[in-house]
Amino acid sequence: MNKATTLILTSSDVNTIMMEHGFNRLMDDLINRLSLEFKNFDKEKSIIPIRSGFNYTGQFPGLVEWMPIHKVNDEVVIKIVGYHPKNPKTFNLPTILSSISSYDTRTGHLKGLVDGVLLTALRTGAASALASKYLASPESSVLGLIGCGAQSVTQLHAISRNFKLQQVLIFDKDKDAMISFESRIRNLNLDINVEIANINYILENCDIVCTATSIDVGEGPLFKDFITKPHLHINAVGSDFPGKIELPLSLLKDSFVSPDFVEQAKIEGESQQLEDIDIGDSIITISQNSDKFEYLKKQRTVFDSTGLALEDKVVMGLFLELADKFNVGTKVRLENISTDVRNPYHFLEKHISVKV
Amino acid sequence: MNKATTLILTSSDVNTIMMEHGFNRLMDDLINRLSLEFKNFDKEKSIIPIRSGFNYTGQFPGLVEWMPIHKVNDEVVIKIVGYHPKNPKTFNLPTILSSISSYDTRTGHLKGLVDGVLLTALRTGAASALASKYLASPESSVLGLIGCGAQSVTQLHAISRNFKLQQVLIFDKDKDAMISFESRIRNLNLDINVEIANINYILENCDIVCTATSIDVGEGPLFKDFITKPHLHINAVGSDFPGKIELPLSLLKDSFVSPDFVEQAKIEGESQQLEDIDIGDSIITISQNSDKFEYLKKQRTVFDSTGLALEDKVVMGLFLELADKFNVGTKVRLENISTDVRNPYHFLEKHISVKV
Repeated sequence: MNKATTLILTSSDVNTIMMEHGFNRLMDDLINRLSLEFKNFDKEKSIIPIRSGFNYTGQFPGLVEWMPIHKVNDEVVIKIVGYHPKNPKTFNLPTILSSISSYDTRTGHLKGLVDGVLLTALRTGAASALASKYLASPESSVLGLIGCGAQSVTQLHAISRNFKLQQVLIFDKDKDAMISFESRIRNLNLDINVEIANINYILENCDIVCTATSIDVGEGPLFKDFITKPHLHINAVGSDFPGKIELPLSLLKDSFVSPDFVEQAKIEGESQQLEDIDIGDSIITISQNSDKFEYLKKQRTVFDSTGLALEDKVVMGLFLELADKFNVGTKVRLENISTDVRNPYHFLEKHISVKV
Repeated sequence: MNKATTLILTSSDVNTIMMEHGFNRLMDDLINRLSLEFKNFDKEKSIIPIRSGFNYTGQFPGLVEWMPIHKVNDEVVIKIVGYHPKNPKTFNLPTILSSISSYDTRTGHLKGLVDGVLLTALRTGAASALASKYLASPESSVLGLIGCGAQSVTQLHAISRNFKLQQVLIFDKDKDAMISFESRIRNLNLDINVEIANINYILENCDIVCTATSIDVGEGPLFKDFITKPHLHINAVGSDFPGKIELPLSLLKDSFVSPDFVEQAKIEGESQQLEDIDIGDSIITISQNSDKFEYLKKQRTVFDSTGLALEDKVVMGLFLELADKFNVGTKVRLENISTDVRNPYHFLEKHISVKV
């Protein structure tokens, strides 16, 4: 531990890390690390409160919330994340803006601060890939993306690492988002056929579907009637706020619903529509008992992904390690630490003439 | 708003700002701004949840907590603060390590990140100076400091701006802290007599006393019996955790106790010892009705200072303004914001050969 410095990984730093390490290798590493964290998860050793935050309506509706996790005898990681659906059109900014910080629990020292925009997109994709591994048919080849914003790119990327995808069917109520999608995934070099479709066609023809929309509170679900393959697996990514839902209750009640974090999903996720008895085991429980849940791959399943601080800890840890490997990032002395810890005004002594 | 950059004020930046602006002028500005914020405080417009965090025992006991405030239609400010009493002796680090960040509520953008170590010491001092203005005798000339760590320096500095102090009586159970105190305040150029004394002597002879110790949970109070001047005012700064108290119940019950934040003080402050009926109006209420509370200056009073996110917002705002004025700080592109907000992998397009 360098006790006096904080490593800052900026936007360009995290891009550099991803280029140096290779974007597929990075996604594979992330999925593997997340898989290990889920398998080894112990709630006595990783304490995750339900996230909290401020939300508001008005001219620029949105929320700013904090997602903390305490890895006992190790670190506290806190992601601060904003969700402002007007950002793209009004400010040409991503809907989700975020940063992630890590603190040494021996001292409270801020070890690092990292962009949370790219990292959130990556870890949300990785979580869907992992959930799909446990809940979708291993033969899945047709992926549906409902909502073609920033998250859809990493959903596709992550899931393409676990499945031999041949076709992607996409829908967004914003035509621009649909039209630009193919150009946005070009550099992933996927040998895959992309087609625009309507929601019902997607539901009927896909093996896996990801919903990642900014549907307004009270406006969901995205669809009402549906015909699906018996083994359809849905990664429901968008629902992360009280009143915001993407899927109809009838589909949820007729599917196995696995939240990332049951207590949080009951407040913010698709599971807010369900009684406790209709909510399945969490994806962590399933990953710790995968043999027992093998049968789910043949059934209709929903991963109720509200976002988990554990995922943020994993992705930040990976980037901090790679920053060290590739010597990327800037170390700053952020905290005012002097040679005399009892003197907050230590710096006054260095100056001969002092303005009072 | 520069929507794409985050201003970082490091340890040396905040020192520079304080030197450039003048340390007395800075403290005066801070006290004045805090005074205005308290007078204009409206709980509909400034939303302050009770702080939350992780705490732990073991080899390195301590806590990391988050203190958020939402100024409606403006900003969210979050201080992350660690309290680790073993820091000075074990790691040569301050007990309190901290950083403060500010977010634009229109977009969620992280506007700035600033050292919270010096800023916490400053604003805690300013809060005591302000409380003393409302609760202590205007003629106060003898100040007592029980606990001579980092906070004591700014307590003295701040209070010296509001009162004509002639003498400071100090006590710390750590002899080194007492002996070094005078050298630590030398650069404040105060015309003041500093004497080491025991706690009972301090209580009996002072007009204002500040308690700012790291007494352990369950080990308080700092003293049992006491004789004081009838108008003694105590700024009780150290109590900020369930079970951590500095003052005896008998003194509290026989004083007017004004918390900074009643609900929080009942959990973490001296007020955790009291029934609701024994807790006085908050310092904000008093500052909004100062005429009505004028009589308190002749009585024994306690400011139960647990620390208020509003104070962090004020001190950060002042430093951000001065950073702009003196052109101090570093602007970084922390958040991954691309020209195509829907493409988290935009950077892949800039490269001809891409590692996969």
